[in-house]
Amino acid sequence: MSVRYELIAQCPETGARAGLLHTPRGTFKTPIFMPVGTQATVKTMTPEELQDLGAEIILSNTYHLYMRPGEALVKEAGGLHRFMNWPRGILTDSGGFQVFSLGPLRKITEEGVSFKSHIDGSQHFFSPEKVMQIQMDLGADIIMAFDECPPHPSTWEYARNSLDVTLRWARRCQQAHHREGQALFGITQGGMYADLRRESAQRFVEMDFPGYGIGGLSVGEPKPLMYEMLDVTVPELPANKPRYLMGVGSPDCLLEGVARGVDMFDCVLPTRVARNGLAMTSTGKVVIRNAQYARDFEPLDPNCSCSTCRNYSRAYLRHLYKAEEILAYRLLTMHNLHMLLQLMRDMRQAIIDGSFVAFKKSFLARYGQESQE
Amino acid sequence: MSVRYELIAQCPETGARAGLLHTPRGTFKTPIFMPVGTQATVKTMTPEELQDLGAEIILSNTYHLYMRPGEALVKEAGGLHRFMNWPRGILTDSGGFQVFSLGPLRKITEEGVSFKSHIDGSQHFFSPEKVMQIQMDLGADIIMAFDECPPHPSTWEYARNSLDVTLRWARRCQQAHHREGQALFGITQGGMYADLRRESAQRFVEMDFPGYGIGGLSVGEPKPLMYEMLDVTVPELPANKPRYLMGVGSPDCLLEGVARGVDMFDCVLPTRVARNGLAMTSTGKVVIRNAQYARDFEPLDPNCSCSTCRNYSRAYLRHLYKAEEILAYRLLTMHNLHMLLQLMRDMRQAIIDGSFVAFKKSFLARYGQESQE
Repeated sequence: MSVRYELIAQCPETGARAGLLHTPRGTFKTPIFMPVGTQATVKTMTPEELQDLGAEIILSNTYHLYMRPGEALVKEAGGLHRFMNWPRGILTDSGGFQVFSLGPLRKITEEGVSFKSHIDGSQHFFSPEKVMQIQMDLGADIIMAFDECPPHPSTWEYARNSLDVTLRWARRCQQAHHREGQALFGITQGGMYADLRRESAQRFVEMDFPGYGIGGLSVGEPKPLMYEMLDVTVPELPANKPRYLMGVGSPDCLLEGVARGVDMFDCVLPTRVARNGLAMTSTGKVVIRNAQYARDFEPLDPNCSCSTCRNYSRAYLRHLYKAEEILAYRLLTMHNLHMLLQLMRDMRQAIIDGSFVAFKKSFLARYGQESQE
Repeated sequence: MSVRYELIAQCPETGARAGLLHTPRGTFKTPIFMPVGTQATVKTMTPEELQDLGAEIILSNTYHLYMRPGEALVKEAGGLHRFMNWPRGILTDSGGFQVFSLGPLRKITEEGVSFKSHIDGSQHFFSPEKVMQIQMDLGADIIMAFDECPPHPSTWEYARNSLDVTLRWARRCQQAHHREGQALFGITQGGMYADLRRESAQRFVEMDFPGYGIGGLSVGEPKPLMYEMLDVTVPELPANKPRYLMGVGSPDCLLEGVARGVDMFDCVLPTRVARNGLAMTSTGKVVIRNAQYARDFEPLDPNCSCSTCRNYSRAYLRHLYKAEEILAYRLLTMHNLHMLLQLMRDMRQAIIDGSFVAFKKSFLARYGQESQE
């Protein structure tokens, strides 16, 4: 098997677990956060900087790379790692979430999904087989089965039907996938219905994937509902396989996800909010354009060891942001990614030390209650 | 004196000279190119990256920093070096060129220039004394006297009058300037008239500045005319002072400027064209969006040792540029700055080795004839 999960330590009070994800590209420490590099680049960052931050695996988007520059070109370049000069892990998503987000621009049938390009309006078709071909050509270390991601809210009937379609597509993905050294994960769905979540997880486990995505969450539902869905899904998943909560990246959700036994996360949040001038710090969010920082010559987060906090003041960051300088986006992205990657490392250490519950409580007390972002 | 020029070697056939510029902030090797950091940042770059490229001194803009964030804030931050975390040399321009570029938004009198902000339309006034105060507060290592930069074309009468105003303002700048360890350079003018250029240079030399800017060139005139103006100006300037050709940065102009005895240059060209997808390479310009590079997996410039050329292909750079990714602007800026800084180092070595004329000829033959950018 191309990816193997090894359990290292478990929190005695929660489901939190520290582990190792062995892949042909190296061994990654879990729980892990994967920065998102939608278009074969984590926005504003070089691969060297990501490595310096300790990022071990990044996510890139099948839909976007299929559209531009096209998987054939990436394959010709020697695969995605070589194209973007990133030597560590890459996971590509299934394209399902992006395609379904197109709304009226797409049409779903049993065979697959036809949709129009967000770039030039041209007509395209994604089937499970096509999505496997694209992801095999891109050559990521972990790829995801093509899924239907039901919108929120959806009726039970819609979610139930969607679950069945996703399972049939997952089987076709397994049959079509044949790239050595590349792991294919399934994506459990089930909308916001506990019975469907349970059933989806059980039926995916029967299909024996090397890892399981938990999809269709963080789509606008209240956080407690997301946690409830995790509470019913994770116990159905095998202990010897990694669990990946897709599209989640706010610090409180990472803590709650890890507490429920999730091992992997990805989200555009830290990089996207950075470009909107928002920094995640150990004591909560900082909106850098605010006038209160105009003459604040302290670092963004005095408790942070990232290069932004070591070298620049809030006043300088505010100036750069207001002057619309690219360096502002770079420095805030750097900080936010460091913050989340460090949070994952701290959680892992706390799990190993047996102090996860105390760590979680103390972190949340300092960071403050966070609303949906 | 806060800045001292030391001549190291001279080309026997041209006016090209290799020297050292001793400043309280360190000794810089000339001829030198100063990357432009208009708003207290060289666009897209960190100070660490600039240091890695070997940049020794950068230029920042008095007008822009006065407008935003204001010189009082920069002073409070401990000066411009500390505000932007740049430990090496900084030169601030006089604001003259920016203010005169405002056209109908400004009005010139003997006392100074009143103008409207390009940001919010508010009313402002720059006098020689005000410009000195701003530059003293910013705290650069080298500052420039306030000058009137005549537009091109200008009549002889306009240029003559402008020359006189600039001289009277320069005297007021000398009287107002009193920051230790900071050198005040004069700016010679004279439009496109040889007699006025000569006179301006002579009268500035009489005022004994530690260095001389050559202003009002590269304002739209043909390159041969600019070279002609240099030919009449430089011989009037003393051999023991640095000469600084303002706003010039295309490779051919740098070579021709150095050949005429210029020691210092600055220009937004390498950074600005980079953000428009244009790379300067050893064999000429590369417009990275061109379809011919879509599947070109070679480096931007196989003869270049910069990190962009060591790590990325033209195909990847084209993809990033077309996808409007910030990394495209970063990687092209990095390359262009490296290219110009390396060109200056190569010129300096050729002067020392006695091979400047051959170097210039061979470089221009490879680079190709360049039109005005």
